[in-house]
Amino acid sequence: MIAGSTGPVVNERLSARARGLGDGRGAGAREGLISFVGGFPDPGSLPFDAIAEATARAMRAHGQWPLQYGPAFGYAGLLDLLVEKLGRDQGIACARDNLILTAGASQGLGLICDLFLDPGDTVLSEEPAWMGAVRLFRTAGVTVEGVPLDNEGTRVDLLARKLEELRGRGIAPKLLYTIPNFQNPTGVTTTLERRRRIVELADRYNFAILEDDAYHDLRFSGERLPTLYALDGGRHALYLGTFSKILAAGMRLGWVVADPSLIARLGGLKADGGTSPFAAHVAYEFCKDGTLEARIQELIALYRHRRDLLLGELDERMPEGITWSVPEGGFFVWLTLPERLDAPRLLPRARERGIDYLPGTDCFFDGGGRQNIRLAFSYAADDDLVRGIRILAELLGEELAR
Amino acid sequence: MIAGSTGPVVNERLSARARGLGDGRGAGAREGLISFVGGFPDPGSLPFDAIAEATARAMRAHGQWPLQYGPAFGYAGLLDLLVEKLGRDQGIACARDNLILTAGASQGLGLICDLFLDPGDTVLSEEPAWMGAVRLFRTAGVTVEGVPLDNEGTRVDLLARKLEELRGRGIAPKLLYTIPNFQNPTGVTTTLERRRRIVELADRYNFAILEDDAYHDLRFSGERLPTLYALDGGRHALYLGTFSKILAAGMRLGWVVADPSLIARLGGLKADGGTSPFAAHVAYEFCKDGTLEARIQELIALYRHRRDLLLGELDERMPEGITWSVPEGGFFVWLTLPERLDAPRLLPRARERGIDYLPGTDCFFDGGGRQNIRLAFSYAADDDLVRGIRILAELLGEELAR
Repeated sequence: MIAGSTGPVVNERLSARARGLGDGRGAGAREGLISFVGGFPDPGSLPFDAIAEATARAMRAHGQWPLQYGPAFGYAGLLDLLVEKLGRDQGIACARDNLILTAGASQGLGLICDLFLDPGDTVLSEEPAWMGAVRLFRTAGVTVEGVPLDNEGTRVDLLARKLEELRGRGIAPKLLYTIPNFQNPTGVTTTLERRRRIVELADRYNFAILEDDAYHDLRFSGERLPTLYALDGGRHALYLGTFSKILAAGMRLGWVVADPSLIARLGGLKADGGTSPFAAHVAYEFCKDGTLEARIQELIALYRHRRDLLLGELDERMPEGITWSVPEGGFFVWLTLPERLDAPRLLPRARERGIDYLPGTDCFFDGGGRQNIRLAFSYAADDDLVRGIRILAELLGEELAR
Repeated sequence: MIAGSTGPVVNERLSARARGLGDGRGAGAREGLISFVGGFPDPGSLPFDAIAEATARAMRAHGQWPLQYGPAFGYAGLLDLLVEKLGRDQGIACARDNLILTAGASQGLGLICDLFLDPGDTVLSEEPAWMGAVRLFRTAGVTVEGVPLDNEGTRVDLLARKLEELRGRGIAPKLLYTIPNFQNPTGVTTTLERRRRIVELADRYNFAILEDDAYHDLRFSGERLPTLYALDGGRHALYLGTFSKILAAGMRLGWVVADPSLIARLGGLKADGGTSPFAAHVAYEFCKDGTLEARIQELIALYRHRRDLLLGELDERMPEGITWSVPEGGFFVWLTLPERLDAPRLLPRARERGIDYLPGTDCFFDGGGRQNIRLAFSYAADDDLVRGIRILAELLGEELAR
């Protein structure tokens, strides 16, 4: 492209949605920095050999189907495996026609936006929220009403108040986006009592519950709580799951659980010719016969250790006035800084010293989060993690001492 | 779901787009029938062992990246391989930032719909058209103005007349969808002269050219013609390619070539976390060092033989009054029946006798195509193909004799 050019002639003919878009070329991982940024699985835990073996088996044992066009709803063998897993691990009783495979939970979320949302609609979302959801809602051209969280999860009192206030203005939000387990970015888990209240409110105000449960299987301590989907019986809830955290993010395999009539429509909205039969058959061959369950136990041990290491370092190193969440699972700890520190403004200095983090502002819809940092403990190896937290603590200490 | 139930409570809150949708549960392949239906690659040609080996190499040679989250625009190694291939085989000079990987050309088409189209817009499309495009335009809520084809491809005279007529009504179509090589469903190729004319018209009326070139590499005879993208210099044209026909459909890997500013926006619209790093690394390992080129030569020999076999059988068996296209490549032959035969009405009888075909009606926007049958010669093995055509000829002959 010529410098200063505004692009091709047809640029002026884009859709309303596309004109509102930023550039998709994100920053990505920065070479040579200790990264607390992305919710990336531990690289050392990725099952390279087992995937190669599963692929070899899939190529031998499934006829043409791993390499051929497949059904819109995904490979039936993997769907059946998920039906079994969801019943056993998530307490979700469902059948094959409650399920559709997606390219990660993120595609599932995108399809559900297409399913429910017209431009101008209002949605509810936890705030701070997963930055992928922030981006998707922005692209969909909807108004997002944020609902805060505390250490017990979604503030249902504020949710109820918000719903009543919106009703007074004649606004009926279409859905609520929530991650009830080890929330991304805060790490908090919504209590059973609050889950029940969310389901009640969905019933009273008739909105869909979009339950993103990407981290469910990675619980390090405390008791498993029932999903919103199970509590609601699938009347208002749609449930998103993913293999990204428990198998391999690079395979881009996730799923949506919902009423069969909604699943059928999601299939109609899917424009990708069905989620990869290749990846789905390989995942099936990898997961069957209890291998996935064994791997999940190993990952729980790995990430519990990382969380404990991070929390120990934070306890030991962080200056007075900085607080953080204590997650019972998942990948994230959420730091809250004193008012006079500014997470996005400090980021270039942190990078100069060799570390990278996600400023809280990426997780808010309206520019909040300047006093927050999301730390992912999933990616950096033990010694990097320790070194990185020391660097961060030192930087924050210096700033506070000014 | 309870019989007679209308689904979950939230069904009444769907988006306008979703309310207009049919059920995504298509019929799929029918067991035990000789199938001329789908543009499925020949099952026997799928490279099972080579994919298993490529996977093993990818797992050893690329660090964490085949199994980790990847860039929104796809694995750079495969993009670079495509830059080289497009320059050599398609005559398209481009760089990495002209490219984005997609889950097949179909996802690329879906993203381009999101990029350009708002509900109520008007688009131009060849008619008959690939049924996936028919479905996508329907979902997008746009008005489709069909442009017929003949043996020289898109009827540019009618295209020009249509554009003038629309201009008179104050309508400026956003894009033209076209498959210039071995068109799906008709098998015809648009001549160089007509390609030049399409580019001229795009310039004069300022619409985007959406060039779907899924079959480009599978030319059996005749000379390669320049792509619309190359003729236009990427000012109005976006180009769709795919590994589905030359590597494996089940890997769901395709690409879009366009101006970098449009590619950036397509990246922003992509909600799937980036096209599968796993599949992309495996494809790279499969394709490098000339393996893909060798495979393409084998596939050309295979499908040329199949086309010749089909044309020979049609010549020998088909009753008087039935005509068909003679494709120079690709997967399809298009039959035209006399007025008093009805392809969709005959389909159940054909299935009773053991064969399956695509009635032309699936490729029209307005119910046309009742006198057309699309025959894919890619999927059925030689003896099935011969047997199937005899059954079809017999059935059509009986109908004509009534």
